[in-house]
Amino acid sequence: MPQIVDVEPLTRDRFREFGDVIEIDGDASYSINGGMADRFHDMAKVEASGPEGRVLISMVRSRHCELPLVVSAVERHPYGSQAFIPTKLGSFLVVVCLDRQGVPQAPRAFIAQPGQGVNYHSNVWHGVLSPLVNEQDFLVVDRGGLGSNLEEYNFAEPYVIEGNVRC
Amino acid sequence: MPQIVDVEPLTRDRFREFGDVIEIDGDASYSINGGMADRFHDMAKVEASGPEGRVLISMVRSRHCELPLVVSAVERHPYGSQAFIPTKLGSFLVVVCLDRQGVPQAPRAFIAQPGQGVNYHSNVWHGVLSPLVNEQDFLVVDRGGLGSNLEEYNFAEPYVIEGNVRC
Repeated sequence: MPQIVDVEPLTRDRFREFGDVIEIDGDASYSINGGMADRFHDMAKVEASGPEGRVLISMVRSRHCELPLVVSAVERHPYGSQAFIPTKLGSFLVVVCLDRQGVPQAPRAFIAQPGQGVNYHSNVWHGVLSPLVNEQDFLVVDRGGLGSNLEEYNFAEPYVIEGNVRC
Repeated sequence: MPQIVDVEPLTRDRFREFGDVIEIDGDASYSINGGMADRFHDMAKVEASGPEGRVLISMVRSRHCELPLVVSAVERHPYGSQAFIPTKLGSFLVVVCLDRQGVPQAPRAFIAQPGQGVNYHSNVWHGVLSPLVNEQDFLVVDRGGLGSNLEEYNFAEPYVIEGNVRC
């Protein structure tokens, strides 16, 4: 029998042990541009270590997923963080796991609301991008360089993410 | 008499000497996530030099500008690039200048269409964020650290950006 995971709302408190929530609401800001704009400063821990590590800006165009979603594998990146910020309003699903001695533990699933992005810290197990709209473009800030920066883990038994979410 | 600057479309070719255009159209991509997404890889030169330089992820909420727009000053950042990517569909105005011996030369003005972002290279003179919608949120990737990373220049005579653009 597959193991069921219920979706949770994405908040900074809930997500703290996995990474950062990138969003405007609730952040301290300061005024810039002669009062015409507010800057919400330094909201994510950007990591790019390892041989010739550097920070990249890329985009990903991702097709939709549907709930229930079967998650049979997760991945992580030892040398770098990975931020995903939608460039069109839309929700997406964020699946992460804590690690125990190299093995990802029971997944948790968060719904990122329109206006929210996430930054996975290095070495945090996560699932693939899962927009809950037909198609979503994400701005990606992650790490380039040499060395092996990808580790994958296939679950012996898939998990199933369930939730009452409109796709 | 103020000097008039006409707006131009934002394309990679036109913008090359100022920085990078971050957009999906026309980029080479490769398939990821088991075919469910395409990655458009490494589209901007991210710079973070100087004392304790590091890359930041921030957001800016910016109020609208209207054309004609009076530009009386520009700024640049010696230690870092600065990328701005809207997180909601909308146009914005990009004002940049070439430099001659520390003095910004005649401005050029580009219209970024919905789906386009820009990355100013370090030391490129540019105007402040100018969304052509009521309010726009931008994801910002720029440089934090110590040292003075801001240089401003006030024009003796302001420039006026004109164009037939719906605000």
